[in-house]
Amino acid sequence: MSHRSIDPARLLGRIATLGEIGRDAEGRLVRLAASDSERLGRDQFVAWLEEAGLEVAVDHIGNIFGIWNGAGVDGEKPVMIGSHIDTVIDAGIYDGCYGVLAGLEVIETLKDEGFEPSRPIVVAAFTNEEGVRYAPDMMGSLVYSGGLDVAAALETVGTDGTVLGDELARIGYAGSHAPGFMTPHAYVELHIEQGPVLEREGVPVGAVEDLQGISWQKVTIDGDANHAGTTPISMRRDAGYAAARVITFLRDRAKASNTPTVATVGCIAFEPNAINVIPSRATFTVDLRDPEEDRLQKEENALAAFLELLSAEEGVGVSVERLARFEPVKFDQAIVRQIEAAARDRGLACKRMTSGAGHDAQMIARIAPAAMIFVPSHGGISHNPKEFTADTELVAGANILLDVVCRLATGELPR
Amino acid sequence: MSHRSIDPARLLGRIATLGEIGRDAEGRLVRLAASDSERLGRDQFVAWLEEAGLEVAVDHIGNIFGIWNGAGVDGEKPVMIGSHIDTVIDAGIYDGCYGVLAGLEVIETLKDEGFEPSRPIVVAAFTNEEGVRYAPDMMGSLVYSGGLDVAAALETVGTDGTVLGDELARIGYAGSHAPGFMTPHAYVELHIEQGPVLEREGVPVGAVEDLQGISWQKVTIDGDANHAGTTPISMRRDAGYAAARVITFLRDRAKASNTPTVATVGCIAFEPNAINVIPSRATFTVDLRDPEEDRLQKEENALAAFLELLSAEEGVGVSVERLARFEPVKFDQAIVRQIEAAARDRGLACKRMTSGAGHDAQMIARIAPAAMIFVPSHGGISHNPKEFTADTELVAGANILLDVVCRLATGELPR
Repeated sequence: MSHRSIDPARLLGRIATLGEIGRDAEGRLVRLAASDSERLGRDQFVAWLEEAGLEVAVDHIGNIFGIWNGAGVDGEKPVMIGSHIDTVIDAGIYDGCYGVLAGLEVIETLKDEGFEPSRPIVVAAFTNEEGVRYAPDMMGSLVYSGGLDVAAALETVGTDGTVLGDELARIGYAGSHAPGFMTPHAYVELHIEQGPVLEREGVPVGAVEDLQGISWQKVTIDGDANHAGTTPISMRRDAGYAAARVITFLRDRAKASNTPTVATVGCIAFEPNAINVIPSRATFTVDLRDPEEDRLQKEENALAAFLELLSAEEGVGVSVERLARFEPVKFDQAIVRQIEAAARDRGLACKRMTSGAGHDAQMIARIAPAAMIFVPSHGGISHNPKEFTADTELVAGANILLDVVCRLATGELPR
Repeated sequence: MSHRSIDPARLLGRIATLGEIGRDAEGRLVRLAASDSERLGRDQFVAWLEEAGLEVAVDHIGNIFGIWNGAGVDGEKPVMIGSHIDTVIDAGIYDGCYGVLAGLEVIETLKDEGFEPSRPIVVAAFTNEEGVRYAPDMMGSLVYSGGLDVAAALETVGTDGTVLGDELARIGYAGSHAPGFMTPHAYVELHIEQGPVLEREGVPVGAVEDLQGISWQKVTIDGDANHAGTTPISMRRDAGYAAARVITFLRDRAKASNTPTVATVGCIAFEPNAINVIPSRATFTVDLRDPEEDRLQKEENALAAFLELLSAEEGVGVSVERLARFEPVKFDQAIVRQIEAAARDRGLACKRMTSGAGHDAQMIARIAPAAMIFVPSHGGISHNPKEFTADTELVAGANILLDVVCRLATGELPR
């Protein structure tokens, strides 16, 4: 039998176009949330939504929605397809954008062929999923699902000292809708794996049934600034050295364990940051992830215990600020089965898996049945210009999304 | 017998006044070389030189000289007293400024009382001793003594991307004299110890007979940026972790040795410096010091060997840039004896010692007999707002300088 298909050229063309928006002077793709460069990406996305004849809605936290209200769907909860279009610094072109543009592509395909859904179909681009400029990450979907008060979120101060609410207003995306104004009947997110599993196993489709828990903390260590030449090692309270010990502790512990636990220190700063002055302060971030809540708590406790030991051994002050904390998430088994069924119908291998990254789907799962579809990431590389998924794999994933959305938009969820 | 004395109120008043020039918004003292705030300090110093009736000269690298040409000294080499007035970030008020202002104080005292030197007496403020904004440190005295070409020095690009020559011209201190235009008969530098030795031993005066060698290197480690959640620890090339291992290696090695070797990592930066991205690049500085050249080389070699091991173990790229390198310096024994004699005459205990910090004196020692006088630093604290030396100790040190300069300016050096 032959299957309906999305328009490969239209989808791939839009991914390429959006991927060129927001390049910096060195050619790096940088569309940090609510920045001038991200505004350009938002404007392009909204233009495409309007070209597709969709109703455009923006909420108070800047989430953008393209709504297709077919005939006779009034009052029905929508099927929502979503992801994000903000990026990290020096990003690839697929993370987030693929899922958003594939969602739009699915709706256009269904509209063009006169498909008659029994409920609205919505594509969503959520604000600040990456969390590079403002913490926590996945903020737009967290606010939308009621997990964070919108007023508090809008007051978030960024790494550059800006206030999110001011920036959203400045770029014209402080919308009029209340977050959560549409409660989805079901939510599906299509995303690159950002890991090496699907490629290594030669499987084109991942049916994501759960998601790692994430713990983000900011650690500040205080010692004494002092002259690098005249202060004997034994008399030093070196905040930089103490920070280095934490970094090696976390990595060596994760490497020694035989669990999927990962620990990363991605940001660091010394004060006064001078060649010939012992650092008086070191500030750094800790990103801990594990698919099991109890193990994640165990890692957090191990870090806390080590910081206490370090404070005693080095005579430094230690303070910890929690930036974000999400428990592992279990997705909707019925939608996961829909994804497996769609892959089977198209003769594609499909693997149930855990997401190692955080995604907006984990937030929307608080208010609606949700699941995710993964496609392979070559070399498992992401958050990097070398991020790559082959065109055929991108198209195959979008067609799986198309099939799943059709089923969700016409019938009840199978139980 | 009674001794002549400098004017305590005038000296202490000027130290306090200069210490208030260049405070930033948080009240921190920050007079980085050739910055707008340092310009204010330079202008105040020049104003004091002119009030004292001294001839003011500035050379191409921005070194400032206040020259007292007494009667009948034409053609004689000057006795030079010097130090610096640039500071680190969040500095104390004594480092450098004390020696410069005491030099001016000594000259004014001798002028006021009709002293008749047989050679000129000069007070010098050398450019960029701290090296925080431009490397290497002690640059002005290095150029003055012919150790670094002035044209090359003026092209130095700072940590903030500025060019030293442009900045000196902008603040009005690109002078007309060729560096080295006066070859000193002798050079004396009065400075706070910046270490704990004199205070701990209760000795008010240090006669500095030698100075530690200094090695400054910039290390860059290259790994792979990748997603912090989906990249197994075993597949990571984490530049930040590799940097942390170098920091702990240097500190643990120095702590384990029973030598005076000190090792400091004062500056660090990660790229892209995002919470959820494994660092692709880590850049940091290494400051190694030892009074014995052979030991200093041994430490440099140990670091090089460890970096090679790390590159192999972690699969990271490592590159090293030499920022500055000075061998240990032996000062002029005759001047050291003069300092001891002056202290004895005033009934003050005096200790021969090694300087743990770099000073302009080590550069001028290349072209003239030179030595230094130290006074106690409470708690050994320096490069820090808590830097402190008691008024009585400051005055005693300045009077030792007065006596030594008198001897040097009237007779030949005793052999």
